[in-house]
Amino acid sequence: MSDILVIGSVALDTIASPAGYSKEILGGSATYFSISASFFTHVNLVATVGRDFPEEYRNTIKYFGVDMSGLETKDGLTFRWEGSYVNDLNCAQTINTQLNVFAEFKPCLPKAYEKSKFIFLANIDPDLQIFILKRFSGKRFIGCDSMNHWIKNKNSSLKKMIKKTSIIFLNDMEAKMLSGESNILKAGKYLLSLGPKFAVVKRGEYGAIIFSRDFIFMAPAYLLEEVKDPTGAGDTFAGGFMGYLAKTNKINEGNMKNALIWGSTMASFTVEDFSINRFLKITKRDIEKRYKTLKKITTI
Amino acid sequence: MSDILVIGSVALDTIASPAGYSKEILGGSATYFSISASFFTHVNLVATVGRDFPEEYRNTIKYFGVDMSGLETKDGLTFRWEGSYVNDLNCAQTINTQLNVFAEFKPCLPKAYEKSKFIFLANIDPDLQIFILKRFSGKRFIGCDSMNHWIKNKNSSLKKMIKKTSIIFLNDMEAKMLSGESNILKAGKYLLSLGPKFAVVKRGEYGAIIFSRDFIFMAPAYLLEEVKDPTGAGDTFAGGFMGYLAKTNKINEGNMKNALIWGSTMASFTVEDFSINRFLKITKRDIEKRYKTLKKITTI
Repeated sequence: MSDILVIGSVALDTIASPAGYSKEILGGSATYFSISASFFTHVNLVATVGRDFPEEYRNTIKYFGVDMSGLETKDGLTFRWEGSYVNDLNCAQTINTQLNVFAEFKPCLPKAYEKSKFIFLANIDPDLQIFILKRFSGKRFIGCDSMNHWIKNKNSSLKKMIKKTSIIFLNDMEAKMLSGESNILKAGKYLLSLGPKFAVVKRGEYGAIIFSRDFIFMAPAYLLEEVKDPTGAGDTFAGGFMGYLAKTNKINEGNMKNALIWGSTMASFTVEDFSINRFLKITKRDIEKRYKTLKKITTI
Repeated sequence: MSDILVIGSVALDTIASPAGYSKEILGGSATYFSISASFFTHVNLVATVGRDFPEEYRNTIKYFGVDMSGLETKDGLTFRWEGSYVNDLNCAQTINTQLNVFAEFKPCLPKAYEKSKFIFLANIDPDLQIFILKRFSGKRFIGCDSMNHWIKNKNSSLKKMIKKTSIIFLNDMEAKMLSGESNILKAGKYLLSLGPKFAVVKRGEYGAIIFSRDFIFMAPAYLLEEVKDPTGAGDTFAGGFMGYLAKTNKINEGNMKNALIWGSTMASFTVEDFSINRFLKITKRDIEKRYKTLKKITTI
């Protein structure tokens, strides 16, 4: 078993969905990733919040055993994001973004974190992602995420960053946008051509695909009767994926395929409730049960 | 091994896609279904064409060993459909439909066809589908297809027909429309509530799901670098699915799951070229190879 380190955001989200409206709930890429990964291994979190960040939310993250010595509290307000899924559950419509203290985020890594063999660079400025990677020497397994904003505005930095990573996680729209390909197989091959050993393309309710030079593998999404809030599904997916790898501490074809199913399993829980609430109500046993069901759905 | 009977259309299609333009090529639901199923078992075809139907196309269907004694030639013109995928490969835009002799289609079944244990009612008027079923007594395995037009305009006939079948094949839009559910799991359960033992929901490039009261199973779509013409993918899918079942002549969970993968395999060939052209260039071995690859893509 190996530690995992995540660098990203801890935020306050305001979400409107067909299931209701939730104001200033716990959100952020690093929050979703770390809570998901915490079911598999020890997680070190690096993020920044403002002085207004509720003690209650701090305790929630702590509850999952996440190491929070890398969570910096700064003068100012916490990063806030407001989104709506009222018109389309598959696509967030951004109502408002207030970066606040996150605008000046300069990740400060506790010395103890440097030994983490698994690192996940959540969706932040690719220049910042490159800056973080300079802190690490030796063999690491590095995952990264990004988004349309950086594909458009920091394209060359983003490609430089991807080259330095082991695996990139993008959703299908992002993969198509970055590659300029409308075909998902061509897009996957393009991502590999940028340098990483693996590329994962997430397709929402249709599951996910992992591309490598040696194999392609798909995991279905777990079929749910109701999706309440899709926020954080991608980061939860990456948390389950990378968390499982860190737990096994071995990169091989079988583990990568299983990791995809674990990622899909974890994401299916996130969307069943607002924020990370679903994880407060489930056990490792619930997760294992769903993992087995998901595996069975495509295996004769 | 058992015979399979298909009742549907044999048509002349004019297709525009990003890969080109093809005028009056061989099309129709019964054409795609029967050629696909012919790789698995003996197929009996019932359809109608006009006197203008090219001898060359008749020979093409014959080439696959399909029994054409149920193909009636009537005074008048053959059913013509013109569609475009130029703007969206996943969704046909109908440019023109000329039903011609198909408007008066009263299926005339050769006596020898009545022994077929497997029957596929391709997308035609549900009242006509019910009329056909009256010809058959005893235990049969009956599959059916339909479309948005009948869901909208012949809803109660359609439901009455579905109740009499063993399995219904719909695409995700149709399943959602018929059930009034936007969630695919709820839509699948609704289809089963109408009476059939199985319901298959086709999701285009995302594969297909089979619902039963005892299990749910998914098959991915084979990843292709280029799709030339998606016309007939659904009927080819059903042809592979039902053809495999007729070949094994046994309805059980394992066979139903395998049938879904065979269906997905056959559909992947269809879209690689216009009309049924791809099947003129492949062997059973090519099909088996792709079937194995498809199975491997989701199995660890």
